[in-house]
Amino acid sequence: MAYNLAPLQNLIEHFERMQGIGHKTAQRMAFYILGLTEDEAKDFASAITDAHTKIKQCKVCCDLADDELCPICKDEKRDRSVICVVEDPRDVYAIERTHEYKGVYHVLHGAISPMDNIGPDNIRIKELIARLGDGVCQEVIMATNPTVEGEATAMYISRLLKPMGITVSRLAYGVPVGADLEYADEVTLSRALEGRSLI
Amino acid sequence: MAYNLAPLQNLIEHFERMQGIGHKTAQRMAFYILGLTEDEAKDFASAITDAHTKIKQCKVCCDLADDELCPICKDEKRDRSVICVVEDPRDVYAIERTHEYKGVYHVLHGAISPMDNIGPDNIRIKELIARLGDGVCQEVIMATNPTVEGEATAMYISRLLKPMGITVSRLAYGVPVGADLEYADEVTLSRALEGRSLI
Repeated sequence: MAYNLAPLQNLIEHFERMQGIGHKTAQRMAFYILGLTEDEAKDFASAITDAHTKIKQCKVCCDLADDELCPICKDEKRDRSVICVVEDPRDVYAIERTHEYKGVYHVLHGAISPMDNIGPDNIRIKELIARLGDGVCQEVIMATNPTVEGEATAMYISRLLKPMGITVSRLAYGVPVGADLEYADEVTLSRALEGRSLI
Repeated sequence: MAYNLAPLQNLIEHFERMQGIGHKTAQRMAFYILGLTEDEAKDFASAITDAHTKIKQCKVCCDLADDELCPICKDEKRDRSVICVVEDPRDVYAIERTHEYKGVYHVLHGAISPMDNIGPDNIRIKELIARLGDGVCQEVIMATNPTVEGEATAMYISRLLKPMGITVSRLAYGVPVGADLEYADEVTLSRALEGRSLI
């Protein structure tokens, strides 16, 4: 049933448009907003417009940035000889959480997917090729998703970069740490067998 | 890990403050906002401030309203001789969805709960007593939640109203339609037995 108060119904519909948010959750969120003080509601609204207007793409790596360059590209301590290529800004944060990687990134903003009409020109491949021109980068790590689209994108980019004399590597496939082997799918398991190492 | 872009991190934190929204969901929501067009983001932000500024409490029943009175209190076809007392505006919509009830409502905005320091003066009981003064209402249906607090509130109000010569009733307890008896808890089942009717 639609709410008979237009401003409330409108707010619920805005929340419902978010992926993974059902009607009940959207409703609960709208009531949460109604329960805020006026200042809190204003803060929330300006957090939305602020994030939207202040966050741009980094000129170098296409990651999210609140300036010309993102914090990682600004950081002089990062190793520019290695570029890790990911599909999405969230993947950058996932890798940063490991605290293991000291190189820089390149965010494609998608993967090649002919089914969805996304070709090489629709993602930031041109920008990647352009930044490799200076000869600083020695290795590109393909960290696209372990999906058909991510694989295809990694292969496509790898074929472009190899003739430029750049080492191209791919994240290892295998069983996730802490998971139960019993529940691993066949493809993952066979990749884990292939990639086995001596202990 | 906190995002190193203040406007993004701020937006994520706003979403995270909502009950039932974890970090991952808040993050996905913030990225959803970044993916909107500028106009869509502005619309979203004004939906929040609009809902907050335009929605008030109905002067009569304390339900949500975008005017002096809520749509139900404005409706001349509703039967003013029966008032259904609920804890929350969402409960009004739940009952409205049945299309069975033709009376009016009173929204308490909570239930008596000494554990949470909510006494009779902290919910809209005074307002209920005040509107009963005109003698139009003959029956009050207590539709507070079937919880300890809801029960206590129903009992408290019932004791106030009975001396005024008003019939006070309570929603029936029993097994939910369509549920499996096997999974019904003991308290619900014993209430369902108590309230059994001839067929």
